[in-house]
Amino acid sequence: MRYELFYWPGIQGRGEFVRLALEAAGADYLDVARLKGRGKGVEAMLHLMSESDREPFAPPFLRAGKLVIAQAANILHYLGPRLGLAPKTEAARLWAHQLQLTVTDFVSEIHDAHHPIAASLYYEQQRSEAHKCTRYFLAERLPKYLGYFERTIENNGAGRGYILGRSLSYVDLSMFQLMAGLRYAFPGSMSRARRHHGRLIALHDKVMANANIAAYLASDRRIEFNENGVFRHYPELDQ
Amino acid sequence: MRYELFYWPGIQGRGEFVRLALEAAGADYLDVARLKGRGKGVEAMLHLMSESDREPFAPPFLRAGKLVIAQAANILHYLGPRLGLAPKTEAARLWAHQLQLTVTDFVSEIHDAHHPIAASLYYEQQRSEAHKCTRYFLAERLPKYLGYFERTIENNGAGRGYILGRSLSYVDLSMFQLMAGLRYAFPGSMSRARRHHGRLIALHDKVMANANIAAYLASDRRIEFNENGVFRHYPELDQ
Repeated sequence: MRYELFYWPGIQGRGEFVRLALEAAGADYLDVARLKGRGKGVEAMLHLMSESDREPFAPPFLRAGKLVIAQAANILHYLGPRLGLAPKTEAARLWAHQLQLTVTDFVSEIHDAHHPIAASLYYEQQRSEAHKCTRYFLAERLPKYLGYFERTIENNGAGRGYILGRSLSYVDLSMFQLMAGLRYAFPGSMSRARRHHGRLIALHDKVMANANIAAYLASDRRIEFNENGVFRHYPELDQ
Repeated sequence: MRYELFYWPGIQGRGEFVRLALEAAGADYLDVARLKGRGKGVEAMLHLMSESDREPFAPPFLRAGKLVIAQAANILHYLGPRLGLAPKTEAARLWAHQLQLTVTDFVSEIHDAHHPIAASLYYEQQRSEAHKCTRYFLAERLPKYLGYFERTIENNGAGRGYILGRSLSYVDLSMFQLMAGLRYAFPGSMSRARRHHGRLIALHDKVMANANIAAYLASDRRIEFNENGVFRHYPELDQ
């Protein structure tokens, strides 16, 4: 099956969690909003959104045959088993999805740290509030989430460093993205705390060494981190 | 099967979306953290969290036999088919879950409007930022989300007023809770905008008239809205 991914073309954002799964599996997919031509581009994405019987609230969404599925975690819950990136039993799939929904919550807090007042305002219009919010984020929320994921890898005793089970899952790919993004956004804070994240760092490196992921990261399909996405590097926020 | 729900005892919060499903179905369940005695209460909840092989990041979570499942939307994805509150096909279940994840996002924004800086601070410590944030929330986000859900009910042409399919689902129960909570928190704003939410108001009333839900709402199992939960009534924020 050829999948069609729809997401804003200029940022990694929430679409990247899906893109990493498609890339790791070597799936046949089109990144529709980044392509030019008839039925392609951002306009095609917005058109499909408004025309769909089951209208997505926001990108990313995936077209798979007749299905149009939105919400990154929901897309991964659907794709995971089909791409060989999810465990086999219902119990383990619920657990993988639960972890992914915790990633979703974390991503939302990471975004809101630089946009605490309104998504419709520029960062520069909420800079002082962002500074205050990020102080609490770095002191309280970042250690809580990363400590939780670190412990989860540790508790997966037989897991060879993966977060669940004994082989690569879409949740591992999301851990890679979280670590890569946080180190981009907060290089100082992440470096100072690195002794607390040994397992996450090892998992990040392990994912990065995956042949399909390495090829993807070296390609122009990987959008670079920038200050329009979830993970933004504002030096004044990285105390 | 007797289910065990674990959630903070003094608030409706995110646990209420699960509680409504259990109540609507007349399920056999214990609301463990609200009970007294051995193996009950908040301590038992925290103990189970820390001892679980698959540690939840936060309440609510559900114990169903050997399973411990966290994240309200994930719990509902699991419970829905078992309680007769989910559609039958995989495609329709993904759609229900997608809508529920959009509810999750909305709930997070509703909470953050009164807590834009840090969950660990009191409202009074972030009142001026909350005022600013809520102004954007009421002008931009509230109409966007409610407009989306209103349109979704409308697009479900044969749906007798339900948000998906032709019978009551857990997503309808969440729509009820959203409308009840928003009218509690923002009575002025919600009243002024009511002509835009005719279908949501009708769905709210239809859910409230369900016999099991009506009995639940009249019981002391329904915690009242209060200023510790997601939906808080601060008159100064309801412009």
